[in-house]
Amino acid sequence: AALGARKMEDYGRFLALLASTLLVGFVSVILSLVWVFHYREGLSWDGGLGEFNWHPVLVITGFVFIQGIAIIVYRLPWTWKCSKLLMKFIHAGLNTIAMILAIVSMVAVFEYHNAKNIPNMYSLHSWIGLTALIFYSLQLVLGFAVFLLPFAPVYLRALLMPIHVYSGLTIFATVIATALMGITEKLIFSLRNPAYSASPPEATLVNCLGLLLVVFGSLILWMASRPHWKRPLEENTKVLRPIGGTPEGTEVESTMTNSSNADKSDLRINTEAARKQNLKFDEAGQRSTM
Amino acid sequence: AALGARKMEDYGRFLALLASTLLVGFVSVILSLVWVFHYREGLSWDGGLGEFNWHPVLVITGFVFIQGIAIIVYRLPWTWKCSKLLMKFIHAGLNTIAMILAIVSMVAVFEYHNAKNIPNMYSLHSWIGLTALIFYSLQLVLGFAVFLLPFAPVYLRALLMPIHVYSGLTIFATVIATALMGITEKLIFSLRNPAYSASPPEATLVNCLGLLLVVFGSLILWMASRPHWKRPLEENTKVLRPIGGTPEGTEVESTMTNSSNADKSDLRINTEAARKQNLKFDEAGQRSTM
Repeated sequence: AALGARKMEDYGRFLALLASTLLVGFVSVILSLVWVFHYREGLSWDGGLGEFNWHPVLVITGFVFIQGIAIIVYRLPWTWKCSKLLMKFIHAGLNTIAMILAIVSMVAVFEYHNAKNIPNMYSLHSWIGLTALIFYSLQLVLGFAVFLLPFAPVYLRALLMPIHVYSGLTIFATVIATALMGITEKLIFSLRNPAYSASPPEATLVNCLGLLLVVFGSLILWMASRPHWKRPLEENTKVLRPIGGTPEGTEVESTMTNSSNADKSDLRINTEAARKQNLKFDEAGQRSTM
Repeated sequence: AALGARKMEDYGRFLALLASTLLVGFVSVILSLVWVFHYREGLSWDGGLGEFNWHPVLVITGFVFIQGIAIIVYRLPWTWKCSKLLMKFIHAGLNTIAMILAIVSMVAVFEYHNAKNIPNMYSLHSWIGLTALIFYSLQLVLGFAVFLLPFAPVYLRALLMPIHVYSGLTIFATVIATALMGITEKLIFSLRNPAYSASPPEATLVNCLGLLLVVFGSLILWMASRPHWKRPLEENTKVLRPIGGTPEGTEVESTMTNSSNADKSDLRINTEAARKQNLKFDEAGQRSTM
């Protein structure tokens, strides 16, 4: 009963954090729209500033908000009864949407630059942003090939999962850093009379947007890196069975397979024991990493 | 023997990565010096641009490079024979040096702004940068009080360690993001004729510096978050012993104490078993977090 109460409390804490994250994300998207509609030229697709404005709106909506949700989609407790395969499709689907929005957002800038004879790709913002998009696309293709298609052997999935997780979180953080650089650039270039340094209302609003992006990123990284909020091991899953024949959807679990120590046999476990074992490993996980 | 070979291979991989990280960090510091001495006004402390230039140099040296080293100092295998207490002093000492350099770097900007009648604290860069410094100082004070002073009970250390690790890595990433914003600002403001958009050599050099900061940050985060590169559990340590009486230097291990499951007794282990157990938990950790 005490354990049950602790679990409910933890569940409540997760929900509160999720609600805060969604709120911060939504407000960020709204602020980006207020920025371009109230203070700037709105949205259009004609080579003018209205076309440029798609860039911040789509980056914040897709490359930050949707990517953030894609990262924590496995953490939602009510999805744990859904099949792992379905969740993988949702994870990949959200990331694909985010990638498409990011690509469109960059096309908007290139078209705007070309129409106005402004050079492309000269700024640190553009260098890191394009690099992030390329890595993001590679991550998506590689993730699809290794974790969704049924061809990759278990040991390869086990080997690549920690890299997939690390790359995903690092790219996400880099995207937010790039958005902050973009905000800085845009405010310096577009605020004249009064300038950025005079702190007009637009500057304050967009600075707050930047702060919210940092808060959103920090919340996503916190939720993604708490081991006790992870999707539990699959039921009916044989954990640590390096010699082929694992059922669909076990590659996350199988990241444990590159084990060099003994006691493998006692890790071939059923539902309840798996849950317990998972908890026990999670305690270790809390000590680990971030 | 096979295990030994694997360990040596892993050790070699760690050293190669550490060498790359140090190289990238050193080159970043050098590039910041080339920037201010070859392209800008050098260093001075007279309210002029030479005083401002301390800002990027000290941030990159202290707030990025030294903080990065402080983060991974527990990972260096040749320090594992040193006492945990000594390593904590080194960790805290490096972070203190980084904090002092960061504070001096900000004083330089404020003095420069005041001398030139440029407003302070209007940019997103300044908002996030100051916030990061405040959180960094809080983290240092709290870390000192909880993990170095001998007063905090084990359960509190266990509760706060995951938060300490998460905050540390998040602040570190935020500092790098802030440095990228600062580079963007400075290049836009200082490059005139040719402008930033004309990609003069200075722009290319400093963009490369920005890229190196991202690479440095990514390498540090990778090393910090690989569970099998963590300092092994203390010898002679009683793991999982919530009822007081733990020896000095066990609070990292004691992050496992807020366990809700059974089998505590079989985790009171000695050297060899602890090593093995640690490895086993590390396998689990690989599945976890990032």
